[in-house]
Amino acid sequence: MQVNVIFQPIGRRGIVCSGETILEVSRKFGVDLESPCGGNGTCGKCKVKLEKGFFEKYGINSDTNNVSPITEKEKEILTKEEQLQNYRLACCTKITGDIVISVPAESERGKQVILEASKSKLFNLNSAVKKYYIELEKPTLQDYRDDFTRVRDALVYTYKHLKEDIVIDYRVLTVLSSILRKQKYKITVALWMDKEIISVEPGLNEEVYGVAIDIGTTTIAASLCDLSTGEVLKQASSLNPQIKYGDDVLSRISYCVMNKNGLEEMHTLIIKEINKLLEQMVTSIHASVTQVYDMVLVFNTAMHHITLNIDPEYLGQSPFPSAVKHGLDIKSRELGINICKGAYVYSLPIEAGFVGADNVSVLISEEPYKQDKLLMAIDIGTNGEIDFGNNEMLFSTSCATGPALEGAQIKYGMRAASGAIEKVKIDPISLEPDFKVIGEDHWNTINSMQRAKGICGSGIIDAIAEMYKTGIIGTDGAFNKKIKSHRIRRDEEGRMEYVLAWKQDTYIGKDISITQKDVRAVQLAKSALYAGAKILMRKRGVDFVDGIILAGAFGNYINKENALVIGLFPDCDLKNVINVGNAAGEGAKMALLNISKRVEADEIAKNIQFVESAAEEDFQIQFYDAMNFPHSKDEFPHIKHILDSIPK
Amino acid sequence: MQVNVIFQPIGRRGIVCSGETILEVSRKFGVDLESPCGGNGTCGKCKVKLEKGFFEKYGINSDTNNVSPITEKEKEILTKEEQLQNYRLACCTKITGDIVISVPAESERGKQVILEASKSKLFNLNSAVKKYYIELEKPTLQDYRDDFTRVRDALVYTYKHLKEDIVIDYRVLTVLSSILRKQKYKITVALWMDKEIISVEPGLNEEVYGVAIDIGTTTIAASLCDLSTGEVLKQASSLNPQIKYGDDVLSRISYCVMNKNGLEEMHTLIIKEINKLLEQMVTSIHASVTQVYDMVLVFNTAMHHITLNIDPEYLGQSPFPSAVKHGLDIKSRELGINICKGAYVYSLPIEAGFVGADNVSVLISEEPYKQDKLLMAIDIGTNGEIDFGNNEMLFSTSCATGPALEGAQIKYGMRAASGAIEKVKIDPISLEPDFKVIGEDHWNTINSMQRAKGICGSGIIDAIAEMYKTGIIGTDGAFNKKIKSHRIRRDEEGRMEYVLAWKQDTYIGKDISITQKDVRAVQLAKSALYAGAKILMRKRGVDFVDGIILAGAFGNYINKENALVIGLFPDCDLKNVINVGNAAGEGAKMALLNISKRVEADEIAKNIQFVESAAEEDFQIQFYDAMNFPHSKDEFPHIKHILDSIPK
Repeated sequence: MQVNVIFQPIGRRGIVCSGETILEVSRKFGVDLESPCGGNGTCGKCKVKLEKGFFEKYGINSDTNNVSPITEKEKEILTKEEQLQNYRLACCTKITGDIVISVPAESERGKQVILEASKSKLFNLNSAVKKYYIELEKPTLQDYRDDFTRVRDALVYTYKHLKEDIVIDYRVLTVLSSILRKQKYKITVALWMDKEIISVEPGLNEEVYGVAIDIGTTTIAASLCDLSTGEVLKQASSLNPQIKYGDDVLSRISYCVMNKNGLEEMHTLIIKEINKLLEQMVTSIHASVTQVYDMVLVFNTAMHHITLNIDPEYLGQSPFPSAVKHGLDIKSRELGINICKGAYVYSLPIEAGFVGADNVSVLISEEPYKQDKLLMAIDIGTNGEIDFGNNEMLFSTSCATGPALEGAQIKYGMRAASGAIEKVKIDPISLEPDFKVIGEDHWNTINSMQRAKGICGSGIIDAIAEMYKTGIIGTDGAFNKKIKSHRIRRDEEGRMEYVLAWKQDTYIGKDISITQKDVRAVQLAKSALYAGAKILMRKRGVDFVDGIILAGAFGNYINKENALVIGLFPDCDLKNVINVGNAAGEGAKMALLNISKRVEADEIAKNIQFVESAAEEDFQIQFYDAMNFPHSKDEFPHIKHILDSIPK
Repeated sequence: MQVNVIFQPIGRRGIVCSGETILEVSRKFGVDLESPCGGNGTCGKCKVKLEKGFFEKYGINSDTNNVSPITEKEKEILTKEEQLQNYRLACCTKITGDIVISVPAESERGKQVILEASKSKLFNLNSAVKKYYIELEKPTLQDYRDDFTRVRDALVYTYKHLKEDIVIDYRVLTVLSSILRKQKYKITVALWMDKEIISVEPGLNEEVYGVAIDIGTTTIAASLCDLSTGEVLKQASSLNPQIKYGDDVLSRISYCVMNKNGLEEMHTLIIKEINKLLEQMVTSIHASVTQVYDMVLVFNTAMHHITLNIDPEYLGQSPFPSAVKHGLDIKSRELGINICKGAYVYSLPIEAGFVGADNVSVLISEEPYKQDKLLMAIDIGTNGEIDFGNNEMLFSTSCATGPALEGAQIKYGMRAASGAIEKVKIDPISLEPDFKVIGEDHWNTINSMQRAKGICGSGIIDAIAEMYKTGIIGTDGAFNKKIKSHRIRRDEEGRMEYVLAWKQDTYIGKDISITQKDVRAVQLAKSALYAGAKILMRKRGVDFVDGIILAGAFGNYINKENALVIGLFPDCDLKNVINVGNAAGEGAKMALLNISKRVEADEIAKNIQFVESAAEEDFQIQFYDAMNFPHSKDEFPHIKHILDSIPK
């Protein structure tokens, strides 16, 4: 007998022979029901609801009696209430007549999850590692298949989307036979990319975790995710232990070059730290590191090489070629990373030289290549990395901004840490400053002055923008010698400076000031970045940007208006300038949870056009023109009201 | 200008534009010239001879002046005599007019080699690992490709048969950048299967070795081969060090089962022994183990599992399933085998349960699947393994012969070692024996009696056949009590026996005899083997065999006529019964030198129909009928004259 079957809310319908189970029919119709136990009525994940009544839309009469009676297994698993509401297990229920079936969201495989990102994103879950439960026939004299073939046959038979060419990790093979017999031929298999068996476990074992790690020069940030739900279960971070070999990547590279075992030493250090974070995260959810089946790494090019134990020597020498730019799948045991023995560690591809995997990660997180709008993504570290374009074409460049914007090479500069001045205002009349220090939750008042240790990147941009807006410095960055204030003076070397905090309000026993030299350093940094942006715009054939994406921790803290006032990037409607925070980390999580993001990453790394901006003919001119605040030629209509109010 | 070019002796011809080099043209015409240096005029391998005169066959006039003048590089490499005979290097010589070019055999890639096998075989060389020399462009600000892409691009550009999807071993990647720069971007790449870079070496480095190893229960035999010529450079063998855990595979398996670290212990032992043999062989040719780029292993199923560190427990229990039957490519470093770090170790596939990779190796060596004739391959060890069939269909089975034919379970039986009686004759009139002992080069004479320690497999077959031929035992194996001789008596337990050697002629201080029980043990062994053979013949639907291949050391020593007299295998023209010696070792060498042999092995392992003969319905009857000498029903026309002369 032929019967009508309809799946809601997806709306799939068709005619099948009576007697098939709902699970079997769902597979035929491409409705992706959860069934980790392989349809054995043991996991209870394929729960569906039978609908009753006439459905005008489909023209059929659905009756909850049009299926086989409820089984003992179902009675055990379904609650009384579920049974009353006509819930059934799809694998246990045979269809005997016309029926409309509602699939609850939790029974769908590949469900959508929400990432805890700066902006919530709906995102399809499709992790590299999935678990499959199978029950095998025992070997007999007639059926003498080898154990591996037996497992492969059962996988392909039970899960119709799997293919015959499944292989097995060598280490898993060495223990396969005894695991098979431990739980009487009932096992759970972890498959990588649906093609390689990376773990075999006795009985039903659904736990499947993954970890995404963003390895920064300064900080390592890890997220432990449930690969079956997409949920971020735990986050952990620590200081990059290599920091003792130098703050910046160049000093780390030199250490490798100068010391025979330098690379091995630094590599081991970072792997140890990764293992520590892993242990810490899994322990907190009462799991084991062997239940972590996948790992995604993002990093800048130098951290990429050192973490993967790849000689980084030539990264530090022009033209800065990397050893490899491709995304890599490396067995965790080759790297000494303590997760499931057969698991792979995936490292995102590098764009080019100093434009690292972290930048690719920003791109797959923000997806400018999917949009019509012309977006510019800026990530400011020791180097400024810029991507510009849209779905038609993408360009990228790396700008030698130097570390000024991170607080280095600034007289009282410091990293964004407790005690750093992170926000600055200057009163246009009195020229008296106000500031906020990291660790405090308020600005200064007369009664409560904060004590500062120095000034960090966002504070420097604020200070210089405010000095420009109040006329203390001019459009060319020079101190206006006509302005008188007890805060403006010459330092011990005779250079002009503006005092932000008096000695008594600091921890360092010295006045904290912004000097003429500091202003110059910021001018050099911002004009390198601006020139890079202009060159990419020329390459793309446009003279505007639709939006600006500020990535990285730095982008999270700066005052966007002040950044535009000093001309850190081209003019843009401020509401289209967005901080995406640690987009590299977000991209890593996405690549962990959805393998199509890895394909996208490879595509970008291959197709993005890298521009060596310093080698372009117009670089010198662009650089020179961008030295002024905000620029000597370009208009900034979006902040015209501010620029117009600056005293001439 | 267009010119005619003809390559001899292959006979390829075509028209090309003048100005192209002979090497370039050869590639277009599919003439496979050696060019390990990539056409740089440094290796001298692409030597060709220019012909002079009118070639009627082709209708062209070939002139040795129709090419560019000889270069300095060629003058350095070619001898004076070669220059006089118009030899040139194909890569240095541009074609400017009609020319006939002779390609000497040594300049052809993929040349035929002769294996040092029991019978010489012409054999195409096509190893898994080949070396390619490339010269790279240095990176510049304009060409900032990563090092790996640079290498891949150069490979694909220089060697047209290579494809873009080449990958690189992770460990090689970690050192790629510095090796590239060591010899100024001139490197040699070792490619596995033309798809994975497993080694990168500075400059031109043509050495490429491989090793084939036959790991027997008793003996390990290794051959070091030059993968670029197919030559066997060195052979070495040693006792399997696991022998201290027992002579046979079952006792080794038990050791693994009974001892917590038993497997690890035995695995480590065999790997150490392999590394010792490797070191010994490469040292003798003044090479290094890192120049060994490929390894092929064959073994029986138990040795396969233990060598690969795979749990063998269930191999010892009915129905004896193996963990895996497929051919495996395992990184040498995963196994702890000290060859080139990135190299793979290939293990030949297993047929089924106790029919191991060694049997597959015999098949790829003897190729019954390529012949019309119905061949039966027999390998006798503790188990008898039989393959039967031809190019249409192949069957295999394993027969529980027990170790009697190897000398175990025989009163005075011993392994084929110094002091063992290996050949026996009995005078039909006097019933006096004569024998030959391993280690001596002659039979006994009255003046020189050899002293024996025991009797080995071939001696036992001889002794029993001779006892049957002289009427000492009857067709049913029972001693003929009517025959009187001082050699025939009852032993201490009252059983009949025939004395082969008197106490004074032995090392053991006891008479060496063949007892009634020994005869029964051989009857059980031979009827198990014969029954297996008959069942395969029935499966194949025939009642004859065209030829018999005796593999293994045992087959090398037995007297074929006597084996037929006792009915060890079905009747066959004795000139078609051949001993192929260590065919398993030969097969391993072939799989090392030609990857198509690995494909053949996989095909066989997949397609051969394994028959569990003991589970067949007619097994009991076949077994019972085969107990008599030579058989109770089957005719043996090829030894009729012998059988007819036996006293009734």
